[in-house]
Amino acid sequence: MSDLFKRHQSTLEQALQTIGSRAFWTPYPEVPSEKVYGEGARQRGEEAFNELLHKPFVLAGHPGATYGGEEYSPHGLNLGITYPLAGADALVQAAYAAGTAWAKASLQQRMGVCLEILHRLNQRSFLLAHATMHTSGQGFPMAFQAGGPHAQDRGLEALAYAWRSMAAIPSEAAWTKPMGRGQSVSLEKHWRIMPRGIALTIGCRTFPTWNTYSGFFASLVCGNPVIAKPHPAAILPMALTVQTAREVLVEQGFSPNVVLLAAETVTEPGLAKSLAQHPQVALIDYTGSAHFGDWLRAHAATPLIYTEETGVNSIVISATDDFQAMCANIAFSLALYSGQMCTSPQNIFIPRDGIQAGDQHLSYAQVVQGLNQALDQLLDDPQRASMICGSIVNPDILQHLESLSQQAKVVRASAPFAADSKARTASPLMLEADFEQVELYGQEHFGPVSFVIPAPDTCAAIQRAASLAKQHGAITAALYEQDPQQTEQAIEAFAQAGVNLSINLLHGIYVNQSAAFSDFHVTGANPAGNACLSDDAFVANRYRVVMWRRPVIS
Amino acid sequence: MSDLFKRHQSTLEQALQTIGSRAFWTPYPEVPSEKVYGEGARQRGEEAFNELLHKPFVLAGHPGATYGGEEYSPHGLNLGITYPLAGADALVQAAYAAGTAWAKASLQQRMGVCLEILHRLNQRSFLLAHATMHTSGQGFPMAFQAGGPHAQDRGLEALAYAWRSMAAIPSEAAWTKPMGRGQSVSLEKHWRIMPRGIALTIGCRTFPTWNTYSGFFASLVCGNPVIAKPHPAAILPMALTVQTAREVLVEQGFSPNVVLLAAETVTEPGLAKSLAQHPQVALIDYTGSAHFGDWLRAHAATPLIYTEETGVNSIVISATDDFQAMCANIAFSLALYSGQMCTSPQNIFIPRDGIQAGDQHLSYAQVVQGLNQALDQLLDDPQRASMICGSIVNPDILQHLESLSQQAKVVRASAPFAADSKARTASPLMLEADFEQVELYGQEHFGPVSFVIPAPDTCAAIQRAASLAKQHGAITAALYEQDPQQTEQAIEAFAQAGVNLSINLLHGIYVNQSAAFSDFHVTGANPAGNACLSDDAFVANRYRVVMWRRPVIS
Repeated sequence: MSDLFKRHQSTLEQALQTIGSRAFWTPYPEVPSEKVYGEGARQRGEEAFNELLHKPFVLAGHPGATYGGEEYSPHGLNLGITYPLAGADALVQAAYAAGTAWAKASLQQRMGVCLEILHRLNQRSFLLAHATMHTSGQGFPMAFQAGGPHAQDRGLEALAYAWRSMAAIPSEAAWTKPMGRGQSVSLEKHWRIMPRGIALTIGCRTFPTWNTYSGFFASLVCGNPVIAKPHPAAILPMALTVQTAREVLVEQGFSPNVVLLAAETVTEPGLAKSLAQHPQVALIDYTGSAHFGDWLRAHAATPLIYTEETGVNSIVISATDDFQAMCANIAFSLALYSGQMCTSPQNIFIPRDGIQAGDQHLSYAQVVQGLNQALDQLLDDPQRASMICGSIVNPDILQHLESLSQQAKVVRASAPFAADSKARTASPLMLEADFEQVELYGQEHFGPVSFVIPAPDTCAAIQRAASLAKQHGAITAALYEQDPQQTEQAIEAFAQAGVNLSINLLHGIYVNQSAAFSDFHVTGANPAGNACLSDDAFVANRYRVVMWRRPVIS
Repeated sequence: MSDLFKRHQSTLEQALQTIGSRAFWTPYPEVPSEKVYGEGARQRGEEAFNELLHKPFVLAGHPGATYGGEEYSPHGLNLGITYPLAGADALVQAAYAAGTAWAKASLQQRMGVCLEILHRLNQRSFLLAHATMHTSGQGFPMAFQAGGPHAQDRGLEALAYAWRSMAAIPSEAAWTKPMGRGQSVSLEKHWRIMPRGIALTIGCRTFPTWNTYSGFFASLVCGNPVIAKPHPAAILPMALTVQTAREVLVEQGFSPNVVLLAAETVTEPGLAKSLAQHPQVALIDYTGSAHFGDWLRAHAATPLIYTEETGVNSIVISATDDFQAMCANIAFSLALYSGQMCTSPQNIFIPRDGIQAGDQHLSYAQVVQGLNQALDQLLDDPQRASMICGSIVNPDILQHLESLSQQAKVVRASAPFAADSKARTASPLMLEADFEQVELYGQEHFGPVSFVIPAPDTCAAIQRAASLAKQHGAITAALYEQDPQQTEQAIEAFAQAGVNLSINLLHGIYVNQSAAFSDFHVTGANPAGNACLSDDAFVANRYRVVMWRRPVIS
């Protein structure tokens, strides 16, 4: 048995158990606390990050003779880190050469390596937090969680699914078929897991690790060398991941090139396309716009593409027994990372005749006012606002907010709020859209913008929200309702639209949140993505099985 | 618990155990014996078949006002059966309407229905044998096995995989996350299996049930209504299957239209295309030429297409310890159903300097002669030849044999052999091809034709056979070799080419044979198909999972 496998076996076993029970569990604590991560961990993480700035990033033996990089933090920092720039052919060649020995390693060996990589990434969580914060623009607490432990959870979850699928295939069997009259024929059969080929993971800027680790680790453990292609403005988190992976690979006697970094500059993009069109790239994981998703489907060399794409998430408010808590909950969901999550709500449907709030009836206007006040309370302290909202990843988003403000009634204006003027910030913009303005609110407006939409009634609101999800994609939906029958109908409507529904969330949990091992992230059943993190379908086609058989020599 | 589920639960459990052990097992005996199937079963099957001839086929409540059918048995019989002809829209509408209740049934209910359908199909195995024989042209013994019990095995195997995947997903969980300071947040979560939509199975003429049941039952148990689209010249076996399924569905209170028959006439084809392009068809299983496979990939509305396509299977002969038995084994593989199996060997590579046979060295010419003699012995009795070779499904094949005989040296000529002059028969044609004539032997020549190919040496033969498999697809490969090192190299080469390898088969088992629960049929790792019967990848994308969650009310 591989030493690394033995060392981490209990973690894998717990993960396997939890994907079955889907109860709460994590081996990677989400609290950025030195009690958990060791005294001095916080400072060491920050120092290690500062140490990387304005230098070439070290990836020993990595292809790419020239270096480049153009990462500017949405919080205002110029990272100035450069990475080896290798073309598609060089990357594919290196991956291919490294892949042979990796494919032949036993499942336990590969799993041991993957678990050790996750373990070391976990130990680097503070560093990864800074790397994530200064590429995605997330606030520190979120960058720590989403860039570190939560991403690691998703990686481990994918490993568990891949293990469960592969471990169910015996490596050999004795097959004896009775032929009548006491005769029989006996074969020995031998099965071997064969990887698909080179795997490509195309990451996004907002969640450089969280959205990448599932595909990255699933492909890797199935024996495929992996080329990680991060967003050119958010390379560092995956560069650190690749660095960590290569360290472990080398220690275990494998070529470091089993894991490669496809870095490129913002000004010279196109590497994702060249890699996707390379005939030796057999698997693609992609998070990003439906626009590029369509390009991949039309042009990639392989049909095996796992995606998370554009979507329009909705909230329907019909009734609540705690109006204040509901408004606070929704306000947090809207503000969190400035609505730049694939799970952020965008459309808030409210019956135009108002809602039931405990014993009271509240008008549509009162509900909107309640949401607004909750945002005020949440964001009145700029420091706190910065922590929650983070910064805006892309200057285009600010222009888009500006343009939207011309197209619809502004209920709550957006403004910069950061004390630090270098940070690109914008408080949540809230617009009002007519129920019939589907062309306006029926598409994804990425960033801190929501629409309050007066609906004819709850039923119409649910139908509209569900139909948007079905047609344009959605990853989350939320409902506030007290009536059991209406709730049943909503559950049915959103299920038919293939969207996960959160009902009556009030305290300490938000519609944006998706927990590994328990929440299947993305259903794969509407245009917001064709794959789920993680399930059997996510892993089972990343390997194939071949057999040889021969008569048993008696 | 559903009654039907309870009745067949032990069968499912045994199937689940066997896909793990991959040892021999079948609940559907392959012997066409009245000891197994009951006294008079044979005669009843034949009578039931004769009863169907020259009449409209009864499918109560099935869409399609007009009737048609043009099935002529390759053995010479005009079936004269007509089927309801419904267009793509009518079939999709009916399937969609029937699908709602089917999707909502519990997994146990659906599994119970599927297991009962298989059970009743098994009871109709003699009838299915006649139906298969007179549409595919198989001899009776093979038609019984491949059309009946072996197909049923494949159906059950797919059910087991689908069950294992779906049953691993809990329908609910309590999720409690510790929030520090003794606080926690608790959600109740509920998961539901959602089918993908309407499933289409496009069958082939040679194995109307065997190649269809895996996809048919996998889609069905995942909650998708299924439209079975058989080859227009081989409708009856699937018509009987659909009839049986509809009987069980109605008895269990479901609409019969959960399972539909897409019949068409030979003279007015095109229904497969209209159905594949229908936006509500969400899943396609297809067995047939790579040509139509390419069309599907380019034009079908859904990207979820599971295929078995064209391939070129090879045998490499290097050494054997029983020359007679080897020749007899290969001869049977070549003759069986006139080479019209996706697993039939086509190319026989023999080192031009000859082979080692026990203590003897045999020249290339002696090996070819040995194969020829074995074919003579096997087929000298026309009755026996008919049983083994069956008839030729398609007159084009005879023309192709004719044309091939002009292009290469004829080692063994093909000729009709049937006593019954109405049957379309052709004894195995054996040609010799030069090792360099890859354009000739490197493509699939469907029908009773093989090439003997003198190779520079064993190593070159293996490399050529493997490279053909990788490039043009192959489902089987066979090797005769005594040297362990050479054997190792062959195992590696064919594994890299994604083809299952049989070594030194001599008695009672043939390279063509693929046993459910043990042999993964098609690797999905070369162009001969993108899917495998059955594995996790075959079933896991036929359903998706949606959740709703809410705080636990304490």
